[in-house]
Amino acid sequence: MEVINNLLNFDKIKIFQNTDWFSFSLDSVLLANFAQINKKTSRIIDFCTGNIPIPLILSQKTDKTIEAVEIQKEIYDLAVKTININNLSSKIKLYNMDIKELPKKYETDTFDLITCNPPFFKINENTKRNDDIIKSIARHEIKVNLNDIFSVAKKLLKNNGSICIVHRTDRLIDIITTMKDNNIEPKRIQFVFPKRESNSNIVLIEGTKNGKSGLKILKPLYIHNEDGEYLEEIKAMFN
Amino acid sequence: MEVINNLLNFDKIKIFQNTDWFSFSLDSVLLANFAQINKKTSRIIDFCTGNIPIPLILSQKTDKTIEAVEIQKEIYDLAVKTININNLSSKIKLYNMDIKELPKKYETDTFDLITCNPPFFKINENTKRNDDIIKSIARHEIKVNLNDIFSVAKKLLKNNGSICIVHRTDRLIDIITTMKDNNIEPKRIQFVFPKRESNSNIVLIEGTKNGKSGLKILKPLYIHNEDGEYLEEIKAMFN
Repeated sequence: MEVINNLLNFDKIKIFQNTDWFSFSLDSVLLANFAQINKKTSRIIDFCTGNIPIPLILSQKTDKTIEAVEIQKEIYDLAVKTININNLSSKIKLYNMDIKELPKKYETDTFDLITCNPPFFKINENTKRNDDIIKSIARHEIKVNLNDIFSVAKKLLKNNGSICIVHRTDRLIDIITTMKDNNIEPKRIQFVFPKRESNSNIVLIEGTKNGKSGLKILKPLYIHNEDGEYLEEIKAMFN
Repeated sequence: MEVINNLLNFDKIKIFQNTDWFSFSLDSVLLANFAQINKKTSRIIDFCTGNIPIPLILSQKTDKTIEAVEIQKEIYDLAVKTININNLSSKIKLYNMDIKELPKKYETDTFDLITCNPPFFKINENTKRNDDIIKSIARHEIKVNLNDIFSVAKKLLKNNGSICIVHRTDRLIDIITTMKDNNIEPKRIQFVFPKRESNSNIVLIEGTKNGKSGLKILKPLYIHNEDGEYLEEIKAMFN
């Protein structure tokens, strides 16, 4: 079912979603909040953008143009409608492409910041893939995997440019070793805990192209209190 | 100055220390608490044991013999006095050796658990080393570095045996990549935060020889409240 929702409490911003596929998730909100944009941040691109939640939130944080890439035509079409209804076509430039093709489109050393909320799940013989192929491609590493993301990032990032991703915590070692293989140094990590007494399920990680070693583990981010309600820090991200 | 202290609130246990070199630290208490000993844990060894705080604490948690290795003769001599005054010579077997020599002493696939609170600091031209060589060797990677530790662990651990170390958080990426280089898979990590609003400064990490991928990030461990007092969870480790 195709629906139109407000994006968070940014009352001005509407987002088209098809609830048969997926709805934008807290993960994207966390990532958009985690990514650092400063005066030197000029070129920004969001990989695996889906229904563009990250560009929408970043568009409220910066005046810079945000580029975004979505491989699936059906999702791209929905995102175009979202851009148009919000009159953001001058701020968000969306491409219906495979990110692996981006090095043909752009010079190396082009971007200051890449964001990415990628498919979370490995594919292997035991994977129960969702029957719906659109949803499966969004959730499983069918069209893109970690090495694709970081090897493209290595080419497209400027020296000392950053990539920020959100992922499942149990994939952390894969993420770190794949970053290192691509000369992207992990610099800043924040672990997300669903509740105070839980293990972490989600991780936010920033890596810098050709960065020096030296990692910061930020204070943990807790999502829910014991009654299952969002904690104040999370609510604040929605405003 | 050589002094004799109670080890934590284990009233029975005394520990000899030379305050000119260093005193046993919270790091060792955290590591001894983090390490998991179960019914299958038969052979245990502590690398870089110093004044044996970790074997002393583990000796209260298990009936198994704990082996321990210290490279510096002066510190070894002090640790021998600690073993003797506590009548623990049947439970703690201490060797004055370089851990790099251990593969000559033991068969491969010997140990179920290795613990290690290693020197924390890299040496390079900019390192201000402590003038006291005994203290410097305990604090800086002069005699042993991460690769020495994990390459020896790789040989000495049984298949699926574990090594638990405590280290500075900013060395995490080095630690993970060095473990992976030695077929030791990081399985369990706990970050330690000096206060609620701080970044992590200390990390506890368990790796398993030839382990399957899949990492758990445990709930964070906070040390102090806002008044600088130990939090209850930390006090509990001292009892």
